[in-house]
Amino acid sequence: MSMLQDKFRLQIPGPTPVPTRIQQAMLRPMMGHRDPESSELVTACSQRLRPLFGTSQPVLILTASGTAALEAAVVNSVKPDGEAAVVVTGAFGDRFAKILNKNNIVTHRLDIPWGKACTPEELSAFLKERPQVEAVFFTYCETSTGVLNPIRQLAAVVREQTDALVVVDGVSAVGGAPALADEWGIDILVTGSQKALMLPAGLSFAAVSQQAWKRIEANTRPRFYLDLAAYRDSLAKKTTPYTPAVSLFYGLEAALDMIEEEGLETIFVRHELMMRMTRAGVRSMGLELLTTESDASPTVTAVKGENGSAESIRAEMKKLNIRLAGGQQHLKGKIFRIGHMGYSDPLDIVTTIAALEVAATRAGVPIKLGAGIQATEEEWIDASRADH
Amino acid sequence: MSMLQDKFRLQIPGPTPVPTRIQQAMLRPMMGHRDPESSELVTACSQRLRPLFGTSQPVLILTASGTAALEAAVVNSVKPDGEAAVVVTGAFGDRFAKILNKNNIVTHRLDIPWGKACTPEELSAFLKERPQVEAVFFTYCETSTGVLNPIRQLAAVVREQTDALVVVDGVSAVGGAPALADEWGIDILVTGSQKALMLPAGLSFAAVSQQAWKRIEANTRPRFYLDLAAYRDSLAKKTTPYTPAVSLFYGLEAALDMIEEEGLETIFVRHELMMRMTRAGVRSMGLELLTTESDASPTVTAVKGENGSAESIRAEMKKLNIRLAGGQQHLKGKIFRIGHMGYSDPLDIVTTIAALEVAATRAGVPIKLGAGIQATEEEWIDASRADH
Repeated sequence: MSMLQDKFRLQIPGPTPVPTRIQQAMLRPMMGHRDPESSELVTACSQRLRPLFGTSQPVLILTASGTAALEAAVVNSVKPDGEAAVVVTGAFGDRFAKILNKNNIVTHRLDIPWGKACTPEELSAFLKERPQVEAVFFTYCETSTGVLNPIRQLAAVVREQTDALVVVDGVSAVGGAPALADEWGIDILVTGSQKALMLPAGLSFAAVSQQAWKRIEANTRPRFYLDLAAYRDSLAKKTTPYTPAVSLFYGLEAALDMIEEEGLETIFVRHELMMRMTRAGVRSMGLELLTTESDASPTVTAVKGENGSAESIRAEMKKLNIRLAGGQQHLKGKIFRIGHMGYSDPLDIVTTIAALEVAATRAGVPIKLGAGIQATEEEWIDASRADH
Repeated sequence: MSMLQDKFRLQIPGPTPVPTRIQQAMLRPMMGHRDPESSELVTACSQRLRPLFGTSQPVLILTASGTAALEAAVVNSVKPDGEAAVVVTGAFGDRFAKILNKNNIVTHRLDIPWGKACTPEELSAFLKERPQVEAVFFTYCETSTGVLNPIRQLAAVVREQTDALVVVDGVSAVGGAPALADEWGIDILVTGSQKALMLPAGLSFAAVSQQAWKRIEANTRPRFYLDLAAYRDSLAKKTTPYTPAVSLFYGLEAALDMIEEEGLETIFVRHELMMRMTRAGVRSMGLELLTTESDASPTVTAVKGENGSAESIRAEMKKLNIRLAGGQQHLKGKIFRIGHMGYSDPLDIVTTIAALEVAATRAGVPIKLGAGIQATEEEWIDASRADH
C-alpha cells in the first residue's frame, strides 16, 4: 500500500473532511450523558445552532443520520389520515416520497426534471389542484443534482394557497447557504452533521415552528424515537430523551466555535465563491454543467459526462487522490459531482480543477488543458478585487 | 477550574470510558460511505460482531442510539393488529412497554419487583393466559437495577408455550455477558455501542433469526429508518441503507480488535470477577446490595442507600473524581449504581471500593472502614489463585 493512501482529498458532497480541531474536540474523555456538563453541552449546542437555521426556536438534535430527521419530519407533520405533497427534483426528493409511501401517506408528487429547480409557478399550479395536503415536502439543496431550490419563494406559495406545513430537507445546505426558517415560513427544517457542519455523520437536526408544534401535538401517528416533542420536552429540561452521541456533541461544539469565528455571512460568501470557481473551471475546460447558473447550489456542482466519460474521469481523479461522487439513480454514469462545502476553501477548488484537467485528458475526454484552471483563478482574483 | 477536572473515573453503567486505541482509530480521515473501503469496513464489522451475539447471522448496524434499536425490534416484530407481552424488571423494561404503547400495540405487561429477575415460573403462568401474543420483550441486563434476567430459560418458556418471537434488549450485556442468540432461541437481540463495546454512543445493533425474518417480511407496519430488512438488504450489497456514522465504525473496528485479542471468554470472566469484587466490597463495608447473588449482572451493581444516603454518597464520590449513577424512576434517591463493564479492570474496582469507603464515611454513613477494600482484594486474590 502506498504511503499516500490516507492523503486523499474528499471532494464529495458529504461526508466532508473533518477539521483537526473538531477531531481533537471529539477526543475529550467520555462523560455521563445525564451529568451537568452534558446538560450544558446539549443546551449550548442547541442555542448556538439557531442562526444556521434562521430561527429563534431551539434546534432539536437527534442521534441518527439525516434520513431519520427526514422521517421525523414526515411522521410528526402528517396525521394518520392526512395527505401530503412532495416536490421531487432528484434522489433526495425521491427519498422523501419513499418515506411518505412507506408510512402509508397519500402522497401527491410534483416531479421536476433532474437538474432543474422547481419554480413557484409550477408549485402554484400543482397545489391549486391539491389544497387538502397537510404538508409540502421540499429539498433545499438537491445533493444528487447540485440544484438549490428557491425555498423562500416556494414557501410563500404554500402559505398563500394552503394551510399546509412547509417541510424542508436542508441537508447539504444548512451552514453553507442562508436558511431563514422563521422569515421564510419554514415549519420544519432538518439537516445532518456530515455536510456543511464539518462533522462525521451521526447527528441530525430539526428546527420546528410554533405553528408546526400545534399540529405535531394533535398528531396521533405512532412514533417514539422520532417523536420531535420528546426532544423538545427533554431540551427544556436541558437533556436529550435518549442516549446522545456525546463524542459528536463534543465535535459539534468545536464546529460551532469555528463557524462563529469565521462568521455565517463570510461562510456563505466562501461557498458562493467556491461554486463560481468550480463552474467557471468546468465550463472553460469544455465540460458541461448539469444546472443553470440560477439553479446552482453553493455546496455541490454536477458535471455531465456522456458515454461513460463521467465514470472514467472520476476513476482518473481517484488515481490522483481526489474523491468525487458519481450520479444517483437514472443519472448514474451520466454525471459526476464535486462537493465544495464545509471545511473546504478556494484553494481546494483550484486543486480540484487542475486535477480535473489532468484526469479528463488521461480519460481521453477532449478538454482545453489550462483553460479551466485559468478561469477558476480569474474568478478567485475577481472576488478578492471586489473585496477591496 | 482544577487541573484535574478531566481526570474523573467514569464508573457508571454506560457510557463507559473510551480506550485511547479506539479514540485514535476514530481519527482516521473521513471517507465516502459509498467507497469500497467503507464496504469493507461495514461488512467486516458486521461479520466480526457475530460471536458477541452468538449468531451465525450477520449483525445489523444502525446509526442511532440503543432506544432506536429497541423501537426497531418493536415495529418490525409486531404486526399492525398484533399483541405483545413485555416483562418489566426495571426502567428499561418499562421503556420497551412505552415504545409498545406509543406504537398503539395491545401490550400485556408482567411487572416484577425492581431488583429481582423474572423467573421461568412467573413467565410461564403469565403466558399461559396470553398465548396470542406475537412477541415477548425482555431485558437481559436491566441497567436500572443491575439484574441479569435468565434469558436462556425465559426464551425456552416462550418457545414451549407460544409461537411468539423472543425479543431481547441486550444493552449493558452484549460483550460483557454471554449471549447466545441462536442457541438460546432469541429472535431479535439488540444492543448499543456505549456499553461493553467501549465506544461512544451513536451506533446500535440487531441480530435477527431466520424465523423472525419471515415474520418481519410479512409485517406491514409502517417503518423506514427503522426497517430492519433495509439494513439486511443493504448489508448483502456491502453497504448501509442510510449514511453511517463512519467515525464510530472506525472505532468499532478497533473495539473488535481489542475484544478478539483478549478473547470473549476471558472478557466474560473479567466481568464476573469485577462483579464479585464489587459485591464483596459493598457488602463487607456494611452497605446493602439491591439484588441477590443469583440475579446479579456482571456489568452493573446497584447499592441501596435509604434516607438520602445514596445521593450523598454519590455526591462525595463525585468530589473524589469518581462518577457513579443514581437510581431511576421510583428508585431515584434510593440506590446508586456502579458500572463495571467495557474498558474497566479489577484495579478500577479496587479504586472504586476504596473511594466508596471514604465517600460513605464523609457522607456520615456508618461503614467499616477497610473491611470493604479487604474483601474486594480477597476476591481478586482468590480469582488469581483459581487461575493457577
